[in-house]
Amino acid sequence: MKDRVAGAADSFTGSPSFGDVVAAAARIAGHVRRTPVMTSRTLDEMVGSEVLMKCENLQGGGAFKLRGATNAVLCLNDDQARRGVAAHSSGNHAGALALAASRRGIPAHLVMPSDVTAAKKAAVEGYGGRVVLCEATLAAREATVAQVVAETGATEVHPYDNPWVIAGAGTATLELLAEAGPLDGVVAPVSGGGLLSGTALAAHGAQPGIRVVGAEPLLADDAARSLAAGRRLDAGPGPTTMADGLLATLSDRTFAILRDTVDEIVTVTEDQIVEAMRLLWERMKLVVEPAGAVPIAALLARPGAWPPRVGVIASGGNVDLDRLPF
Amino acid sequence: MKDRVAGAADSFTGSPSFGDVVAAAARIAGHVRRTPVMTSRTLDEMVGSEVLMKCENLQGGGAFKLRGATNAVLCLNDDQARRGVAAHSSGNHAGALALAASRRGIPAHLVMPSDVTAAKKAAVEGYGGRVVLCEATLAAREATVAQVVAETGATEVHPYDNPWVIAGAGTATLELLAEAGPLDGVVAPVSGGGLLSGTALAAHGAQPGIRVVGAEPLLADDAARSLAAGRRLDAGPGPTTMADGLLATLSDRTFAILRDTVDEIVTVTEDQIVEAMRLLWERMKLVVEPAGAVPIAALLARPGAWPPRVGVIASGGNVDLDRLPF
Repeated sequence: MKDRVAGAADSFTGSPSFGDVVAAAARIAGHVRRTPVMTSRTLDEMVGSEVLMKCENLQGGGAFKLRGATNAVLCLNDDQARRGVAAHSSGNHAGALALAASRRGIPAHLVMPSDVTAAKKAAVEGYGGRVVLCEATLAAREATVAQVVAETGATEVHPYDNPWVIAGAGTATLELLAEAGPLDGVVAPVSGGGLLSGTALAAHGAQPGIRVVGAEPLLADDAARSLAAGRRLDAGPGPTTMADGLLATLSDRTFAILRDTVDEIVTVTEDQIVEAMRLLWERMKLVVEPAGAVPIAALLARPGAWPPRVGVIASGGNVDLDRLPF
Repeated sequence: MKDRVAGAADSFTGSPSFGDVVAAAARIAGHVRRTPVMTSRTLDEMVGSEVLMKCENLQGGGAFKLRGATNAVLCLNDDQARRGVAAHSSGNHAGALALAASRRGIPAHLVMPSDVTAAKKAAVEGYGGRVVLCEATLAAREATVAQVVAETGATEVHPYDNPWVIAGAGTATLELLAEAGPLDGVVAPVSGGGLLSGTALAAHGAQPGIRVVGAEPLLADDAARSLAAGRRLDAGPGPTTMADGLLATLSDRTFAILRDTVDEIVTVTEDQIVEAMRLLWERMKLVVEPAGAVPIAALLARPGAWPPRVGVIASGGNVDLDRLPF
């Protein structure tokens, strides 16, 4: 791992290994929160299994994203660090990268679409990040990041197509298994595939034979369709899901990891997402965003069909209280 | 303590001691959740102190009440236990007592006012409690409990005027101090005074010299006025607070304990409660009810005026998502 770290945060192009997840856990310990694992008898009865929920909504910055961002930032050598980091993101990765960078005392440049909500922009700036607005197209965002990198020498930290980010995301599952003990399966949401890739690498490494399941909104089921087809497919046309944290699509890297490590992707409807979210808020007293409720919705969608002990990653809790679906 | 337990759950009339809190902690361990202690850099910066929040909203039943109810239920001898427990409560105590009783496999009779919400009634019944409806006056509720006790031989477990309930409530502070290390002060909400009494007994016993502060809505400031006057005063006329968990008034027992152990009661406005609640939901991702947000509101009401490390009890998270104040 050592040679992958020194000055190499932009040159490690392969898939991370279980060892990279373990190394990430050691690296970010003390920099991120060891989030609690919560249970609910009501949830267990509804699912028909013992459910152990890793509460990454309680992570710093409100999402698991701080793990990968912190791992990437801590892997920079001093020269890279001085020049800072950059990313395009309209969601949790922007805040996480700004927070991770500010904790190391280095600059973070976050490219966000011009229609980003004031709250999201303020959150990034509150963490000390510099926001660069651009047109709300993928092409404009990528071009703007490239320009920022050219101007500043910053290292781009992609929200999921990055081995350190993937390895960092996997540390949540390492902690879950350490606290919960042996599990029969683990369920995580899938969007660009960074969290699910890290989850699978961590789970299989720590506990060979464990079942790894992705959960995805039916209205953004490109990962399910891609894995079924054996090749990367784009998101289809039509209405978008309320789980705005799950709109990204797989990269070549995450597709390859998921193809080799994930047993199944379960898709859920918008109604099932709202029902799961409401259960989490009302019964477990946890503010979980729609994306974070998707794996709980997947569990609830198939009562009685899960193995005895199932872990689940509640990935984030960043919601707009003025725009609740209930 | 032993002679206070055997068959004595309805005959121990004095104030509990620190030893009773320690005994309660040993008794209820494994029966209640060891809730997490959460922190927030944003909250720390706003308060001007390091704030360590004991998350009793994440307790079983959604409130600290399960601690006292469990302690009281486990103190019953076999003969008393067979005949069950009874209480009048329209709030968290009813659900907690039903849950504690069901876990020991004994009956629980909960007297609730006929205008109780369907959700609260369903929650108690979901925990296996028998709901007895009566008129929504204190006299009717007390008379109905007396009748239930006469008919069933059940032991009445008062929501706060009960030494086992007070000692059980104090166990949250024991856990907070064990996890957080030395604190300069601790803040808890005050209603009937059971939680604040237990908090003070636990805090002073574990850490002599610690500052103990109560927090109360200005619209239900009978505890603040009572302690200032040196005698128990009733709630005044006028509008009631949204913190519907804090409408009870002190008993002779809790008044005497608070008079001897509490340094100060801080009152907060309804706007301050909403602001604190919103901060807890948005930034800490925790569903905390208005009563549970009151001590955070007290901290925020006096930025810079608190000692360096302050503990706070977020007492519960039972809110109606269809009736949010924001």
